Amino acid sequence: MDKGLLVVISGPSGAGKGTIYRNVIERAGMQRSVSVTTRAPRPGEVDGVDYFFKTEEQYQQMIAAGEFLETAAVYNNFYGTPKAPVFENIDNGRDVLFEVDVHGARSIKRKYPDAVAVFVMTPDFEVLEKRLRGRGTETEKSIRTRLGSAKNELSKYDLFDYIVFNDDIDEATESVLEIINAERCRVKNNIGTIKNLLK
Amino acid sequence: MDKGLLVVISGPSGAGKGTIYRNVIERAGMQRSVSVTTRAPRPGEVDGVDYFFKTEEQYQQMIAAGEFLETAAVYNNFYGTPKAPVFENIDNGRDVLFEVDVHGARSIKRKYPDAVAVFVMTPDFEVLEKRLRGRGTETEKSIRTRLGSAKNELSKYDLFDYIVFNDDIDEATESVLEIINAERCRVKNNIGTIKNLLK
Repeated sequence: MDKGLLVVISGPSGAGKGTIYRNVIERAGMQRSVSVTTRAPRPGEVDGVDYFFKTEEQYQQMIAAGEFLETAAVYNNFYGTPKAPVFENIDNGRDVLFEVDVHGARSIKRKYPDAVAVFVMTPDFEVLEKRLRGRGTETEKSIRTRLGSAKNELSKYDLFDYIVFNDDIDEATESVLEIINAERCRVKNNIGTIKNLLK
Repeated sequence: MDKGLLVVISGPSGAGKGTIYRNVIERAGMQRSVSVTTRAPRPGEVDGVDYFFKTEEQYQQMIAAGEFLETAAVYNNFYGTPKAPVFENIDNGRDVLFEVDVHGARSIKRKYPDAVAVFVMTPDFEVLEKRLRGRGTETEKSIRTRLGSAKNELSKYDLFDYIVFNDDIDEATESVLEIINAERCRVKNNIGTIKNLLK
């Protein structure tokens, strides 16, 4: 591998991307990307570990300076992925994994087309609905909204390189790990090594 | 998966592609492609299992009819990969694996750009030389020739999608299996399934 991979995991709410993200980080020893946020730290959260906590003014300055790979507003707070630590890891041969929504995936792909984008989906929408209901925390209305968003997100499939149908969380984790290992073997990610051998 | 994969394993003599090919066929339960040849059957070889045995006239007719994915002459005999059974398997969702030389890989990629081409290489040329010497069957001259061919083959790296550095045969087999599983998750290989879900 000439350098590390930037891997993005996305998909609808309820498809299991968060669990897969945490499993993969743990099993592959990958670098977690620490986001920047303007929201207040919750008890126990550590600056630089859970998030980089910034004021809105600092955040806007970072946007203006082009320091983000992607940035999004969620309920009056900003969340963003800073470029510098990500590219430092990649340049040092360390893979970085992100969990982002479809807008974040698009934004990252635009700024870094070599990013590997994985869409996590349930085997079908019926299973997604069942899982959302199974949470027991969603209203009928929010279930409808989430299913609508899920369809809309899946319709953006051409933004993604891979799709993992999460029927079983261990198998889906395994698939993402296999995708990462396969990407490490891609010729385009080993051209430096190959040219060195040919010298 | 909308249909089966056509996977091609290639690489220099001595890099281990034959062993990896057999391991993957066994472990992934993949379809072996049976070649056509004009050479005489050896004792124990069964027509339709080891090879399809043809006369040179029959073989030339198959070439003329465009029935080959690739064809090559080796020491006055012809060897070729017939198209029909390969595409029948792929259309029925069964993956097919080939072991071919670099010319064969190029010819298959030209006729079927969706083919997944994997180059198997030793970690470097010193290891390749050691392995060729270790066989104890190669003359000094043939070792030189094979090393020269190996360099020439690796210089065609842009024909290939993946490169596997075979440092350990089990790990290299694992990498090829991971590549196959990752390819099964590629969005471009699941567009039919995705469109069905979106209906």
